[in-house]
Amino acid sequence: MTLAPDPTPSARRQETRTRLMDAAVEVFAEDGLQGAAVETISARAGFTRGAFYSNFESKEQLFLELLTREFERRAADLDEKARMLEPTLRERAGCVDPAEAADYIVQFFTPSQDATAWFVLEAEFLLLAMRDPSLAPGHHDFMDNFYASISGVVERVLQAAGRRFVIPVERAILVLSGVYEHALRTAALAGTDPSGAFTELGDRLAELLFALTEEE
Amino acid sequence: MTLAPDPTPSARRQETRTRLMDAAVEVFAEDGLQGAAVETISARAGFTRGAFYSNFESKEQLFLELLTREFERRAADLDEKARMLEPTLRERAGCVDPAEAADYIVQFFTPSQDATAWFVLEAEFLLLAMRDPSLAPGHHDFMDNFYASISGVVERVLQAAGRRFVIPVERAILVLSGVYEHALRTAALAGTDPSGAFTELGDRLAELLFALTEEE
Repeated sequence: MTLAPDPTPSARRQETRTRLMDAAVEVFAEDGLQGAAVETISARAGFTRGAFYSNFESKEQLFLELLTREFERRAADLDEKARMLEPTLRERAGCVDPAEAADYIVQFFTPSQDATAWFVLEAEFLLLAMRDPSLAPGHHDFMDNFYASISGVVERVLQAAGRRFVIPVERAILVLSGVYEHALRTAALAGTDPSGAFTELGDRLAELLFALTEEE
Repeated sequence: MTLAPDPTPSARRQETRTRLMDAAVEVFAEDGLQGAAVETISARAGFTRGAFYSNFESKEQLFLELLTREFERRAADLDEKARMLEPTLRERAGCVDPAEAADYIVQFFTPSQDATAWFVLEAEFLLLAMRDPSLAPGHHDFMDNFYASISGVVERVLQAAGRRFVIPVERAILVLSGVYEHALRTAALAGTDPSGAFTELGDRLAELLFALTEEE
């Protein structure tokens, strides 16, 4: 019988960080970002407050790392959905009407079940950052990077459908994001699951995409 | 010498409410919505906590009334600016290019100096409402009414310029609002006065307005 080798210090450190981050997702959802105590997060992960602070400067820094992980997941998810949609769109190029486009958009943009919870946490983080910009020094660049990464995917899908934006893509993405956020906000205010709001969002985004694009 | 008549009970009540609301604007800006104590607001206005609660159910209800007052002011302000712009636009109808449109838009949409402070308070209120929708039962209808009231003004200005939306006006307004909010958020995150961000916003809104409208 051979024993598994001890994890290396850096692997052990990574595991501690991952456990703290996973625990923080739960505690943030329960208590909010401002209400969540570092003690609660550490205890949930089975660590001390000291272990927390040897891995993260603050809960805001941990949150920004969580947000990065979440947005990387979303960008990868969009990319994968785009690859699945592109062949169909290429076949149908030039004959996609708004109703059909709305179906594709719903498939493409349907958020995960916990999208409302994330949206509320993001709103809280944004509020903290607006009150004290030093809390989130990288937030603005971070969002710009995210939008840049999805710009490429959205352009590729449009190209497959034989269309292109009539305004610069980076601005078009901000416009579409504004409509997407409005739908999440409406769902969060109504206290409902966002999936209901997202059928309507598909129609809205399709309508907007047709206005903001032209045939290539 | 004649004495001024005593104010009627309802006039006195209105004055108390106005003083409490004016004091609340200051206290909210200083302490945030969640941090502001009813005691502080009452004391600032020269009243007791009891006087506060005989006029308002809660500070959230007072905030919603402040927001109503502020949005009515904004809608009236937009309406007045529209009346001033319309004659020029009618003369120039059909020959307004995006650069000239951007100038008009900056005149039309330049926010008041305290726009960033209001934006942060609105973000906080929205967050409270998302956490507990019962805190702001009327918030969603209220925003819908505001958007409806500015829809008419924006359509009138476009008509004077000889253009009309290619998507339904109520949706176009949400799209434009999303871009407007993004500029305020960027200003708030940068901790800067929004006026700098607003020259760029003029260009963006002009670009978007041309994409979302056509000549009549």
